[in-house]
Amino acid sequence: MTNADSPALKTALAYYHAWTSHAFDQAMTYVAQDIVCLAPAGRLEGAEAFRGFMESFTKILTRSSLVAAFGDETTAMLMYDTNTLPVKDAPGAECLTVEDGKITRLRIIFDRLPFDTARRGASGSD
Amino acid sequence: MTNADSPALKTALAYYHAWTSHAFDQAMTYVAQDIVCLAPAGRLEGAEAFRGFMESFTKILTRSSLVAAFGDETTAMLMYDTNTLPVKDAPGAECLTVEDGKITRLRIIFDRLPFDTARRGASGSD
Repeated sequence: MTNADSPALKTALAYYHAWTSHAFDQAMTYVAQDIVCLAPAGRLEGAEAFRGFMESFTKILTRSSLVAAFGDETTAMLMYDTNTLPVKDAPGAECLTVEDGKITRLRIIFDRLPFDTARRGASGSD
Repeated sequence: MTNADSPALKTALAYYHAWTSHAFDQAMTYVAQDIVCLAPAGRLEGAEAFRGFMESFTKILTRSSLVAAFGDETTAMLMYDTNTLPVKDAPGAECLTVEDGKITRLRIIFDRLPFDTARRGASGSD
């Protein structure tokens, strides 16, 4: 299978283009109710917990561009750059499992350190 | 092109299997002299700067396993779990550009926050 034929990549990109366009309701149509998300802060189970995590990120997102995207029958990987209000350069990478057009598992990696540093600065603590 | 045919993925996996086996000299045979590495802490130029960054990581590495790996003619993506001495669960993702069997560009994403927290704890500072 080539990446162009990948059903998992097709769903992953539809999800990506929706959330980076601030169309989060549309993004959630690609997310399974029982999604398991492995994020830097820990494991999130279920669509509502996932929405709480990702939608809050989209609210600080000012720009995004894809770096690379691959996929096969059931798995896709994306890497992207983002700019956010607190952190100007915040790239991320995702590995997504897709079943019947819905994302059932999403592993996301990003660097929390600059966000933590920005938060500490904003709160005046050290 | 399928991922199984990808020359970039073949090189990326050879590099990955070498550095995760603590065979760093072998890993460096897949790295171009003029590699550009985009890491969370910034941009590294040249094989020696890259080695200083990655080899120090391999010295604290205790285990690694691939999560996913894809590639085409010139680009590969890897995601992996690692365990390290200071941080037990430290996944990473890479996007690699490969030319003539050598990695010329490597973008790596991982979460620095738990390493920073461990370092602060070890030094007794807050």
